Amino acid sequence: MGIDASNDWILKETKFDPTALGKCEAIMCLGNGYMGLRSSTEERYVGEKRGLFIAGTYNRFDENEVCELPNAADVLEMDIKLNGQHFSLMQGTIEEYSRELNFCTGELHRYILWTAPDSNKYKLEFYRVVSLKNLHTIAQKINITPISADMEITVSTGINAQITNTGSQHFSEGPKRFYDRKYMQLVQTTTQSNIHFVFTTDVTFSENADTHIAMDRRKIFSVYKTKVAKNKCLTIQKITTIHTSRDRANENKTLDELQASALNELKAESTLGYDEILKISAAKWQELVWQSIPVTVQSSNPTDQLALRFAQYHLQIMAPAHDNRMNIGAKGFSGEGYKGHVFWDTEIFMLPYFIYSQPSVARNLEEYRYLSLPGAREKAKGNGYKGAQFPWESAWLTDGEVTPLYGAADIVTGLPIPILTGLIEIHISCDVCYGVWQYYMATGDEDFMERYGYEIIFDTAIFWASRLEEGNDGLLHINNVIGPDEYKDGIDDDAFTNYFARWNLHLAISYYDKLQGNLFFEKLDNKLKLSAQYDAWKEKAEKIYVPVSREDGVIPQNKTFLNLKEMDLTKYKNQTRVGTIYNDFNHDQINEIQVCKQADVLLLILLMEDAFTSQEKRANWDYYEPRTLHDSSLSLSTHSVLANDMGDYSLAYDLFVRACNIDMGSANMHSSDDGIHAASIGGIWQIAVLGFGGLRLVGDKLRLAPHLPDAWESLTFYAWLRGQKLKFDVTKTSANIENLTKTEAVTLEINGIEYIVEDMLETPI
Amino acid sequence: MGIDASNDWILKETKFDPTALGKCEAIMCLGNGYMGLRSSTEERYVGEKRGLFIAGTYNRFDENEVCELPNAADVLEMDIKLNGQHFSLMQGTIEEYSRELNFCTGELHRYILWTAPDSNKYKLEFYRVVSLKNLHTIAQKINITPISADMEITVSTGINAQITNTGSQHFSEGPKRFYDRKYMQLVQTTTQSNIHFVFTTDVTFSENADTHIAMDRRKIFSVYKTKVAKNKCLTIQKITTIHTSRDRANENKTLDELQASALNELKAESTLGYDEILKISAAKWQELVWQSIPVTVQSSNPTDQLALRFAQYHLQIMAPAHDNRMNIGAKGFSGEGYKGHVFWDTEIFMLPYFIYSQPSVARNLEEYRYLSLPGAREKAKGNGYKGAQFPWESAWLTDGEVTPLYGAADIVTGLPIPILTGLIEIHISCDVCYGVWQYYMATGDEDFMERYGYEIIFDTAIFWASRLEEGNDGLLHINNVIGPDEYKDGIDDDAFTNYFARWNLHLAISYYDKLQGNLFFEKLDNKLKLSAQYDAWKEKAEKIYVPVSREDGVIPQNKTFLNLKEMDLTKYKNQTRVGTIYNDFNHDQINEIQVCKQADVLLLILLMEDAFTSQEKRANWDYYEPRTLHDSSLSLSTHSVLANDMGDYSLAYDLFVRACNIDMGSANMHSSDDGIHAASIGGIWQIAVLGFGGLRLVGDKLRLAPHLPDAWESLTFYAWLRGQKLKFDVTKTSANIENLTKTEAVTLEINGIEYIVEDMLETPI
Repeated sequence: MGIDASNDWILKETKFDPTALGKCEAIMCLGNGYMGLRSSTEERYVGEKRGLFIAGTYNRFDENEVCELPNAADVLEMDIKLNGQHFSLMQGTIEEYSRELNFCTGELHRYILWTAPDSNKYKLEFYRVVSLKNLHTIAQKINITPISADMEITVSTGINAQITNTGSQHFSEGPKRFYDRKYMQLVQTTTQSNIHFVFTTDVTFSENADTHIAMDRRKIFSVYKTKVAKNKCLTIQKITTIHTSRDRANENKTLDELQASALNELKAESTLGYDEILKISAAKWQELVWQSIPVTVQSSNPTDQLALRFAQYHLQIMAPAHDNRMNIGAKGFSGEGYKGHVFWDTEIFMLPYFIYSQPSVARNLEEYRYLSLPGAREKAKGNGYKGAQFPWESAWLTDGEVTPLYGAADIVTGLPIPILTGLIEIHISCDVCYGVWQYYMATGDEDFMERYGYEIIFDTAIFWASRLEEGNDGLLHINNVIGPDEYKDGIDDDAFTNYFARWNLHLAISYYDKLQGNLFFEKLDNKLKLSAQYDAWKEKAEKIYVPVSREDGVIPQNKTFLNLKEMDLTKYKNQTRVGTIYNDFNHDQINEIQVCKQADVLLLILLMEDAFTSQEKRANWDYYEPRTLHDSSLSLSTHSVLANDMGDYSLAYDLFVRACNIDMGSANMHSSDDGIHAASIGGIWQIAVLGFGGLRLVGDKLRLAPHLPDAWESLTFYAWLRGQKLKFDVTKTSANIENLTKTEAVTLEINGIEYIVEDMLETPI
Repeated sequence: MGIDASNDWILKETKFDPTALGKCEAIMCLGNGYMGLRSSTEERYVGEKRGLFIAGTYNRFDENEVCELPNAADVLEMDIKLNGQHFSLMQGTIEEYSRELNFCTGELHRYILWTAPDSNKYKLEFYRVVSLKNLHTIAQKINITPISADMEITVSTGINAQITNTGSQHFSEGPKRFYDRKYMQLVQTTTQSNIHFVFTTDVTFSENADTHIAMDRRKIFSVYKTKVAKNKCLTIQKITTIHTSRDRANENKTLDELQASALNELKAESTLGYDEILKISAAKWQELVWQSIPVTVQSSNPTDQLALRFAQYHLQIMAPAHDNRMNIGAKGFSGEGYKGHVFWDTEIFMLPYFIYSQPSVARNLEEYRYLSLPGAREKAKGNGYKGAQFPWESAWLTDGEVTPLYGAADIVTGLPIPILTGLIEIHISCDVCYGVWQYYMATGDEDFMERYGYEIIFDTAIFWASRLEEGNDGLLHINNVIGPDEYKDGIDDDAFTNYFARWNLHLAISYYDKLQGNLFFEKLDNKLKLSAQYDAWKEKAEKIYVPVSREDGVIPQNKTFLNLKEMDLTKYKNQTRVGTIYNDFNHDQINEIQVCKQADVLLLILLMEDAFTSQEKRANWDYYEPRTLHDSSLSLSTHSVLANDMGDYSLAYDLFVRACNIDMGSANMHSSDDGIHAASIGGIWQIAVLGFGGLRLVGDKLRLAPHLPDAWESLTFYAWLRGQKLKFDVTKTSANIENLTKTEAVTLEINGIEYIVEDMLETPI
């Protein structure tokens, strides 16, 4: 795959590469938060991984598996025969080729000049869009022009529900039906969660075509046949709608009613036609993103701007803004990876984007956490604790923990490796709390806090208070956990976990104090029995052991880390794909080495930057950065932002470029096969805005401390702060801040000085 | 696809054709009655349909589906990279190519001289066998020789359980494990019938290879990497065993024990190695088929001999001779078509082969019917009848009816067409009875009859007696049925059904009379309350209406057929694929036309040839043959044998050739995609031996009346008759019969004269 960055709006593949199908499907994925549609081609290839995912429709195949987002029917496939020759780029000659995803319009466009094995030449153009306006619509347009002779064309297309999640079929086959010998409709119903998916599609040809209708198992399709004169362009349009019984609008409909309304909606969309659907959707992209919150950079490396648009594009399509019962999966909706489950990635890596760019979406994401408190309480209870213990992997609101129990093969035992994160990676509960607090600090949204936020903070504090273990030293410890550095498991006194658990307790205590006398608080106090626990919180918060820094300032990542053996990590530091260390060592062996997947202490320092001294930050940076393999796509942004803080500007920019390349780059052609890396994409934005742009929440204060990389002339971005929309124009020497809303002043600290931004502010930096 | 018949032992494909993958997979399918393995290639292609089916392991995906033979894990796949180039015949240049299935040895061999896209040249040979001796073993051998330069080769292979039945996943994922970092084992368990499948495999390289072990969802595999010098041949062997908890030997094992014994067996087979496994299996082919019961023809058309071997080969691999709880599916084990279900095809089309060639297998097949009486009784009861009503489609012994309820799209309504066969195609109950009786007549196996056979005959008679409906004419009718001609449904007084129902009752009456005084009969009488029903049988048998011939001798196929409208059928008579009439008419419309899918009356005349006069036979032949579209692969053999009887020798041979081409021919490249046509293959043998060879059971008498086609010089075949193995050498003018067993004399009618064959008999014909 080659990416042509000559147009910084367009992600472009310039050469057909049958070994990179999965990557392109994922990074060029279309979507709108309701659905994610992998950009598989109309014609099929070995190695492709077709995928369509609808937010929040989790299903569990059987009791041995955890629930996952089911891979729904495929509507893209078109079997095309041109003068009897099957259209496939594996045959014949590709004279010209490009595939482009235009972030501005959200349109995917493929252009091919193809000579078939029989020497006939054709121009083929495939257009596709998932509407950002009507969340249920997928529109396709295909133009085919025979160049060298008249053409007889046969096209077979419809709705194919034979698709599985890597072999697991999540759907029962439902009704299939043709209406008016034209519209095709297929219903599939999830086997366990019992959600109906109604697919309706309409195919139209610009020339009269003979039509033969057909059904197969889990499949409805039509075969169209027509003739087209040389140099005449045949246009095929296929408009498809998807509705499910989980859609809020369909909750009270019978299946018959749902099918009928779906057919009506399809007819309306089909009447609009492809071009109009695209136009309406592109306008929505302008409204929501490109006119309102674009991040713009003047860089000597044009890929930087492209990468920032790539990030904003994917952040937009991965967020189920329409429904607070859903959240963002670790792969968005761009693949089966991580089963569509929701991780701490949301709060730590993607949420900041939404807090500053689309606060209402951020609120939705945290409302999801509130709505999933029943599952979190169930999890705590099941583990013998109190309060809310958020699941490491989250799906249905009531499910609680859905982390699978086993992973890949252990090279020593030959058995699958147990996955312990769901059992002991418990920092997720403070991560959620941190997300809620961040949202509150940036927005001041009291309504959210009263309805949802405080309850999360109190109930996680209750969990932590019950989770602490008294040690022989008289202090309270947290033993047997996994920190963000997942190389280490079953460890005691993880710095990240302990610091944040203490912070969570302190936060609950301070809100308990603050909220005395409020009516809603009385209810909450009553519900969660807060008063009865308050004193214990105070006592416990004082007695929590947090790893303190050595004389040189280095904070032990956990109780044993600094005593583990050291090893030359060069080989793995230079890896082009993740996990290469597992080719040489098994998990138990890695547990005994001073090596980090990502560095707990550095992330801690980034998220709690007012809790550590400059000397401590420097010492830990110098210690942990060399020991970190970045074997998680999550760590690059953390390290880039910190590198910038540390004045290691060149490394900061290098890590930014690496973060951009996680998905867009061509070093590893398969790491995105199962979907894009949502956290890394959130990280791209974080590096630009929180890192180089230097906009940060420090404690409860907003601070601006920009430092652009050498390659950048300027950076412009927008941020919503406490209800005001601010525009930031940053150069190497100055920052220009404009309060666009102007209904309230915003306080910002720049270079140690507090500014109040009512209208415009220009300051050197 | 091209078939090269220059060697009449070898089915050969001479050109790689990516549009004919499914056909080759099916017609070159390997197997042994325990399993059927579609001959998919090691490398993957779009359009392939990989399949492995284990006899009798039916599973039901959900309540909307009927049970089917699940498509088990794929062990054939090998992802091969040669000097970094992915091996695929869709790329590069195929310099030489052949794929051959050798019926003599049961070995599949593929030879390719391939120039990769990077211009490097390789010789690749793929060998494969499913052992006929150890029913659990699949062996593969691959030789790869780099021709133009040294080679770095990477091979990824293992066990892939992501396979589904056209989207329906029948398995839960079970344990996966490497033993000794070498042997791979994967367990999959059917979701509803709870059968464990244990796959164990061992891959060995003739050169030292770096090995990386890996697991994925529903998948265990290893990646091997090695270097091979130019012109040196690398040999890869992969030996795989499959065991299930349904195997008789494993019934009392825990899963752990099953896994352990499977590993031991794999080790033993792997120690043997490919060549030895092949040798042992080929010897078994000699023993069971080619040395003992070959059908040999001297024909001017070499394809005739090939087709007869094709038939014997497939009949051997489709018969689960090892277990009487299983039977033959309509596609054998060569594809997902008809879900592995058992139809009347067994008794009417395949059973005769086994009765004469392998009577113990024939007995097994009918024991299956006995064992499935509980399901048949359940079905009768559910429909408000008595006795045993055999299911139209049969699977598990206790299931009863498993015919799906809906099929393809109705072109008029746009809805799926209801499938009524399971409800009203009731002649299956006499077909089973006819099979039992045929087996008894040919073998004289009293033990079988006393244990199983009589009970089937009596209980089907009980069903028929309860099924008859009194008409206004005072006679007993059978209304609302489907006969063998499935174009017509909901018809009354179907000739085939009514004649056979009467016959079934008469047979029960005669055995009731005959068996008086036998101890086992008393038990049976007691169990089925026969004495209480005997008088009613006699009365009812007299009063059954059977359609009588018109003055011209034509027997009405049913009550209304002869009054339906006539239509020019030329277009459909000349069709190269089945079902083309459905493109123009829907089922209701076809119901109103004098057109037969297959002709009920002609099949009736063939099976009951002593019940009709020569004049009747001729009249019906002349009437129905032109009105029959042969839109079922079942009808060609019936019509060919009858054409021979009628003296229409040229048509008889034409229909033989057409029957051979149903699977082997190249007119329709997709009709075998879902599996071979088992009944048609039984029919190939029937045309040769029962038709041209003229060996027939007429009533309870054996008769020989050969008439070879012009193209044939001679025909040699073997038949077991009443415990004696006879060899028949037939020419155009003589028949030479040898009793090889010689322990008893066999009575045969030839040209109206009864001969007693004690040793040798030569007679002109």
